[in-house]
Amino acid sequence: MDADELIDLIKWDRDGLVAAIVQDAGDGTVLMMAWMDVDAVRRTLRTRQTHFYSRSRKSSWHKGESSGHVQDVESVAIDCDGDVLLIKARQVGGACHEGYRSCFFRRVGDDGRMQVAAEPVFEAIAVYGTPPPPGDAVP
Amino acid sequence: MDADELIDLIKWDRDGLVAAIVQDAGDGTVLMMAWMDVDAVRRTLRTRQTHFYSRSRKSSWHKGESSGHVQDVESVAIDCDGDVLLIKARQVGGACHEGYRSCFFRRVGDDGRMQVAAEPVFEAIAVYGTPPPPGDAVP
Repeated sequence: MDADELIDLIKWDRDGLVAAIVQDAGDGTVLMMAWMDVDAVRRTLRTRQTHFYSRSRKSSWHKGESSGHVQDVESVAIDCDGDVLLIKARQVGGACHEGYRSCFFRRVGDDGRMQVAAEPVFEAIAVYGTPPPPGDAVP
Repeated sequence: MDADELIDLIKWDRDGLVAAIVQDAGDGTVLMMAWMDVDAVRRTLRTRQTHFYSRSRKSSWHKGESSGHVQDVESVAIDCDGDVLLIKARQVGGACHEGYRSCFFRRVGDDGRMQVAAEPVFEAIAVYGTPPPPGDAVP
């Protein structure tokens, strides 16, 4: 998949990044949001698996590279402003480094208290070793 | 809906904003992504309709205030890192200022060319007058 036309459309932020929402291509669950630089966008379109930009490592990384929890890309859309991508993908395992399928496993309850609204799909410590710090650097 | 617990969890960016994805509560379509400041988060939870932050006006605004295309909120979730909200809502009319139900109406085709993958649901000029500039300031 040639990325040139998409890359020309993207309005990169002041850090040279674009927000990328990943949605499950099957049931529509929103799995995560992360950031891509131009290299991550190119790799995502070329390999048909998601790549993101790690601010801590200052380079793009392949989601699932160490965990096996890759995201097989089915489609890539861009919003009207050109500053957000929507990627529909098939998620292997779970998207979240805390062991959940979706990173959005906590929601506001009717009483305003936060509640966990999902069950883990894998054991985070078994996959990642010690629990990784929250952030953008979970391969 | 009390917003205090959610607001404490949010990791605000350097501009004091948090990304908010809006997903249709019915069929799961991802409608848009925009930004909220603390005031927009409070108004969204209090009124159960989405409010966002306008960088150009430097204040929060009520989505649909002038167009009638409000978003009735059903649930608000937060991701593991605390820097993205996922709002499930019922969209009246269309979310996109260009007349589409979702802002993500363009996608990358198999040949790498961008293609429009949706039909407009309303006539943008009839709703907004002259076409508004793309950006975050479409009420």
